[in-house]
Formats: sequence, structure tokens, C-alpha cells
Amino acid sequence: MSETGFVLDPRLQADTRPVASLALCEVLLMNDTRFPWLVLVPRRQGAVEICDLPASGQALLWDEASQASRALRAVAPFDKLNLGALGNIVRQLHVHVVGRREGDDAWPGPVWGSGPARPYGEDALEPLLARLRDELARVPR
Amino acid sequence: MSETGFVLDPRLQADTRPVASLALCEVLLMNDTRFPWLVLVPRRQGAVEICDLPASGQALLWDEASQASRALRAVAPFDKLNLGALGNIVRQLHVHVVGRREGDDAWPGPVWGSGPARPYGEDALEPLLARLRDELARVPR
Repeated sequence: MSETGFVLDPRLQADTRPVASLALCEVLLMNDTRFPWLVLVPRRQGAVEICDLPASGQALLWDEASQASRALRAVAPFDKLNLGALGNIVRQLHVHVVGRREGDDAWPGPVWGSGPARPYGEDALEPLLARLRDELARVPR
Repeated sequence: MSETGFVLDPRLQADTRPVASLALCEVLLMNDTRFPWLVLVPRRQGAVEICDLPASGQALLWDEASQASRALRAVAPFDKLNLGALGNIVRQLHVHVVGRREGDDAWPGPVWGSGPARPYGEDALEPLLARLRDELARVPR
């Protein structure tokens, strides 16, 4: 399974803004002010389940999810991290990294299916993306 | 962080039945006929976030989640695997491994917060636990 032919799912593309490209994954910011929320998408065309990646790819995916978690925590402190790989709607393999705050709009339920996103204003989005990129460049790989 | 003093959270204990003890995790079956659903709990007292485990423990956790996924698929075929580590309600670190079928009771939404469990009858539970144990013993570690 190679990087050749990888195309980001159009729904993921519509719901997010690109943050950074790590060794395996595209890191995207969900455009939803309700939750600090990153999505990691391995650049492997046709991957649906985590087991579709070779063992080394699975390990790298979780390393990058951990790296994304640390960056997210530095930029938007949270009480509890939620990690999820669902894919019931968008089949392209992707992992959610979501910072949860007690009393947030979906607390203590899951963010998935919790209603429509509340997009960032452009004024807020660019500085947030810049800070996430700085943190992702800083954290040990 | 050691195994000493590990006690399974009472809510997890009430909602599940024990399947097996792997090198790191207790594997539990959620007592809910609506979804084939395993929960993995690392025997590490005080662990809340995945990053509370050392890197080797994190790698083992994902290996065991993968092993549990294969066992679950062998026993109860599904269309899509859902993996999640939430912990908004029960803080003790645990990972959900859920087999989803198109049209199941929560499809395409998440299983978390999808209403009350429908427990297995004892007649169905014991054979299912036995099959899961067989599969967990069989799959390569």
C-alpha cells in the first residue's frame, strides 16, 4: 500500500483545514470552535481499517496521534483526550484527536454526531493553525 | 507505573464480563447484544490517558487492541471497526473495540451514548466468551 494516488476524502477536506504533513499522516484541524479537534489521515490510498496498514505503519500512526495530542494540548488545554477511529460515514482511514473540556457542548457524550459544527472565523483560524504548526514542529518525534 | 494496586473500575466491571488477561490489558466483553464490543483495560493503576503509559506500553496497548479486533471479527463479523479511547465518564484508561454493522442500533452514529445496553442471556453469554477466549489464544501475538 503506497502513497501513490492518495486523495483526501472530499468530506474530510470540506470539514477541515490543513495543519501539517507528518511522515505518514496529513494533520487536519476540524473547523469547529466547539472542540479543539485534529484529524489524522494516513496518506495510503485505499486504507479503511487500521489493520490495512503494515505493523510499522500502525506504530507510526499511533506515534503521530500522540504527537498531535501533545500539540493540541499545548495550544488548547483540555480535561480529557478523546481518541477515535470510526469511519462509519467517511470510510477513508482517519483518526480523531479531540480535546474535551468538562461542560463542553457534547460533554460527557462523544463529539461524533453531536450536531452541526460552529466554524472558526478566519481571524481566529490562521493564528490557531500557525500555533499548531509551531507545536507540531517542536514536539519530539 | 506498575500493576500493583490495579483495581478495575466498578462501572466497567458492572457493564462487562471478563474475557481474558493479555500481557498488558484485561479484555472485557460489553454485556450488550446490540454490538460486538470489547473493552481493553491496561492493568496500570492510575492510568487515565494513553500518554500515561510508557512508549513500550502504548505500543503493546495498540497491539493488543489489534489482537482483540481480530478475535472479535472472527466471532462476530462486522462491516466497520470502531476504536475509541474516551474516558469522559469512566476515567480509568480503557480502549473500546466495537464491531459495527450497517443498520445496527446506532448506525452510523457512535455507540457511546446510544442508549441502554441490551444484556445477553446467560445461555448466549458463556458460549460467546468461550469463542472469544479461543480466538484470543489463537491469533498471533
